[in-house]
Amino acid sequence: MKKKKENTIDSGLKIIPLGGLEQIGMNITAFEYEDSIIVVDCGLSFPADDMLGIDLVIPDVTYLKDNFDKVKGFMITHGHEDHIGALPYVLRELNVPIYATRLTMGIIENKLKEHNLVKNTKRKVVKFGQSINLGQFRVEFIKTNHSIVDAAALAIYSPAGTVVHTGDFKVDYTPVFGDAIDLQRFAEIGKKGVLALMCDSTNAERPGFTPSEKTVGRTFDTLFEEHKNTRIFVATFASNVDRVQQIINTAYKFGRKVCVEGRSMVNIIETARNLDCISIPDNTLIDIDQMKNYPDEKQVIITTGSQGESMAALSRMANGMHRKITIGAGDTVIFSSHPIPGNEKSVTKIINELIRKGADVVFQDAHVSGHACQEEIKLIYTLIHPKYAIPVHGEYKHLTAQAKIAESLGIEKENIFILSSGDVLEMSEEQAKITGKVPVGAILVDGLGVGDVGNVVLRDRQHLAEDGIMIVVMSLEKVSGELVAGPDIVSRGFVYVRESDELIEEARHTVDEAVQNCLERGITDWGKLKSTTKDVLSDYVWKKTKRRPMILPIIMEV
Amino acid sequence: MKKKKENTIDSGLKIIPLGGLEQIGMNITAFEYEDSIIVVDCGLSFPADDMLGIDLVIPDVTYLKDNFDKVKGFMITHGHEDHIGALPYVLRELNVPIYATRLTMGIIENKLKEHNLVKNTKRKVVKFGQSINLGQFRVEFIKTNHSIVDAAALAIYSPAGTVVHTGDFKVDYTPVFGDAIDLQRFAEIGKKGVLALMCDSTNAERPGFTPSEKTVGRTFDTLFEEHKNTRIFVATFASNVDRVQQIINTAYKFGRKVCVEGRSMVNIIETARNLDCISIPDNTLIDIDQMKNYPDEKQVIITTGSQGESMAALSRMANGMHRKITIGAGDTVIFSSHPIPGNEKSVTKIINELIRKGADVVFQDAHVSGHACQEEIKLIYTLIHPKYAIPVHGEYKHLTAQAKIAESLGIEKENIFILSSGDVLEMSEEQAKITGKVPVGAILVDGLGVGDVGNVVLRDRQHLAEDGIMIVVMSLEKVSGELVAGPDIVSRGFVYVRESDELIEEARHTVDEAVQNCLERGITDWGKLKSTTKDVLSDYVWKKTKRRPMILPIIMEV
Repeated sequence: MKKKKENTIDSGLKIIPLGGLEQIGMNITAFEYEDSIIVVDCGLSFPADDMLGIDLVIPDVTYLKDNFDKVKGFMITHGHEDHIGALPYVLRELNVPIYATRLTMGIIENKLKEHNLVKNTKRKVVKFGQSINLGQFRVEFIKTNHSIVDAAALAIYSPAGTVVHTGDFKVDYTPVFGDAIDLQRFAEIGKKGVLALMCDSTNAERPGFTPSEKTVGRTFDTLFEEHKNTRIFVATFASNVDRVQQIINTAYKFGRKVCVEGRSMVNIIETARNLDCISIPDNTLIDIDQMKNYPDEKQVIITTGSQGESMAALSRMANGMHRKITIGAGDTVIFSSHPIPGNEKSVTKIINELIRKGADVVFQDAHVSGHACQEEIKLIYTLIHPKYAIPVHGEYKHLTAQAKIAESLGIEKENIFILSSGDVLEMSEEQAKITGKVPVGAILVDGLGVGDVGNVVLRDRQHLAEDGIMIVVMSLEKVSGELVAGPDIVSRGFVYVRESDELIEEARHTVDEAVQNCLERGITDWGKLKSTTKDVLSDYVWKKTKRRPMILPIIMEV
Repeated sequence: MKKKKENTIDSGLKIIPLGGLEQIGMNITAFEYEDSIIVVDCGLSFPADDMLGIDLVIPDVTYLKDNFDKVKGFMITHGHEDHIGALPYVLRELNVPIYATRLTMGIIENKLKEHNLVKNTKRKVVKFGQSINLGQFRVEFIKTNHSIVDAAALAIYSPAGTVVHTGDFKVDYTPVFGDAIDLQRFAEIGKKGVLALMCDSTNAERPGFTPSEKTVGRTFDTLFEEHKNTRIFVATFASNVDRVQQIINTAYKFGRKVCVEGRSMVNIIETARNLDCISIPDNTLIDIDQMKNYPDEKQVIITTGSQGESMAALSRMANGMHRKITIGAGDTVIFSSHPIPGNEKSVTKIINELIRKGADVVFQDAHVSGHACQEEIKLIYTLIHPKYAIPVHGEYKHLTAQAKIAESLGIEKENIFILSSGDVLEMSEEQAKITGKVPVGAILVDGLGVGDVGNVVLRDRQHLAEDGIMIVVMSLEKVSGELVAGPDIVSRGFVYVRESDELIEEARHTVDEAVQNCLERGITDWGKLKSTTKDVLSDYVWKKTKRRPMILPIIMEV
């Protein structure tokens, strides 16, 4: 018993990140107390560069499935993909209720509809200030600001104490829609005593304050004034409803009609409009087909594709691949976004393309971040005054940057935890420590396949991508074991064959000799024949080309 | 004759970029006057993301080969890969003399040695201020500053007038090694009248002046003072000899020994040392094996890998894959570099890895650019006062940014040329225009193969990388045309087979049925059998998985 005692804490409150660090984007965290588990967020991640052909990455929720009877529901902080995107996949195996604010739920419902899951999923829209009782937990939704409307922080009350999870947030005293972050409530909760704060780390390396979203509106006014005589395109994130609101406000001020392009943006704006999260003056929004009725200088096109995505509306309009609109000389294109790390090259590519087409590209000042900088993080820490700090949401360097902030505010180093996926952090008023590890992982989604592409397949794809494949086929006679056809060599992705007929012919000859030699020595074991073929051909090709294509011998018996 | 007249200019001076815009990095420009061609630089480019498995990209020099008797030599501005890297490949087909300054030639010779080309290549080391007569041309090498020692601008004198090519440059009034850029000579040449200026555009979007390299030295002093008690690693570009000089200066000041790691850096430092382009105090440089004789706080390791290259010394030292050094808790790692566009993600990855290992990572202020900003560009334009402006070196957006600067300085818009690869720009005092196009292109180098990987192979690699391959083999009896073995299906990179045995079995059955059906209907044409196999299998797989693996039917005759 002693041993067990050493490694557990009596309180029973466990915090378990199930996605997170190893796979940036997969935000999903389990909170467990005795017979109750609640899950905060259920995000997806986009594939890393070496995950060839993969569409999405979702978290492995084996731990939740194994404890299905305990799981009370998903609490969703806001409607971004990295917080909701895995829901349609996870719900199929773990059908529990979803709790979220209005717009967040609207966006989730769009997703569920696409996956035919809307009927069988229990959903409850929560208001700010409202609390939900779920087993041993009570969860309160608190108003915050972020680059999407209706973002929430969560106060998670358990018998062991209170944990505050900020979600993704910034402090915006003058938000475009709705109220500023409910700092008074943060203070009240902090005053009562908070065990742990889980705070957004995205901008923890940046000093100062993130500017208000409203500052972007003033930039639009200036830019529209400067480009009075041209058609204006504004590229931004599909989900940034406030940004779209401000573009529309400025367009209206300048008497321009607005057309929204890009499926994801059209969907979200429609959802936001139905929920009164965006206010569009009458006769301002026009359909793409109506554009011809207005002169260029009376049009604004708000579009997706600000990250240079090759299939998004902006790229298609720049490349002449869009069925209705082509961006060209005289047009102004405003990027109201920053490149997400990793997208710099594709963003530059589209900018070059636009300039080449004669467009005037504006790439500055028309964006602010949706995440808190250092001073805002300090503010939240000071209001909440937690015993333990658990930096969340960011790469390792961002989490350590927040850890340093927490330390500078007087939180003891041993009370700051940077958790890895699967870590079980148990905590009480007396102590907190990592007491175990649960199975976690990244499940790859490729087409309809969820989890059927693993490391072996990815390694093969990598190999195929590097140097292609050479297939060696031969037929052996069933009884005599004699070679009756082949070896023939077919290659793909290796070299352009017409250039290298001789190479292939010589390779064929080399393999033929080796196989005949085996057969003459009475070796008829297919495994041996295949490995000989592989070795001989691989050596030959390496010597001739310094390349290592995948070599795949196939033997047929006739 | 009229028609021809309209499209040529009597002067006969032609400027033809043979690499450049379409493939950033491949700097190579031909200057042609009657029977004489000189070529400025001969750079390589690194493969774009979609050039799977490709090692390097070099320019297609068909035009030079077709005019071999005219080509007098290569004038090399400086020793960076994007200006010299293609020489070993191009020289094999176009053996003409190379002219370059001392260190540039030293670096080129290292390359030629690796390729066994040093004996057969004529080389002439040129001093600053010296002129070389080559057919109708005279070329003068002018001292500039850049992130590598011995960088030169070229004044190219022809009977039609003078063209000044800046190479890559910045204006450094207080360079670390050697003299400041020879602004007086620029002024003198400008005073005499210059037809065209070809000026580095890399930083044309940035206002102000690029700081002197010396400012980085002061930063090192501060950083070494702040990290007195730890081992210090500094990651920078292998070829930045001045940077290495400054790190050594600071190390010496603080009584630290210096170890240089990374093959390319070791080579360049050795070359620079042999040519007295770097000055290292006695007993400062130590071998990696001597490190154990000194305490951590008396060591500095200068290393390659500042771009996050996975095989470079820094990554290996961070990942515990280096045979002698492991970076860990207590170490300080200074990045003396900025990420090259496209490398942001891999740089972030190595930073996260280093922080995770406990290292203190410094990523700011320890780098300055080697390229001129807007005010420096204006200075050169003002000194040279050219009739025509031809912005060079940069992406399209950089070239257009310089074009705007040129315009703001009073150069008429129609006298500013943004050239594409292969454009033939003819110019005289009276006029300049694009009068033709020569064949150009990017040749892909993969292993030993130069140009044997083209679009077909790349498309196949892309296809294989996305969804893998399914191979269908079957044997037909020669005389009867009957199916005697197969169809068998083998897949790689598609799905992990043990998970999908049923899928493959059903697929096999589907193909079998379709092939039998063909044969029964008397269809024995292999082309038809293969296309049927492809169609049937492709449909089946798409329906079941929403994926499109490459499908490769192989028929054997026995």
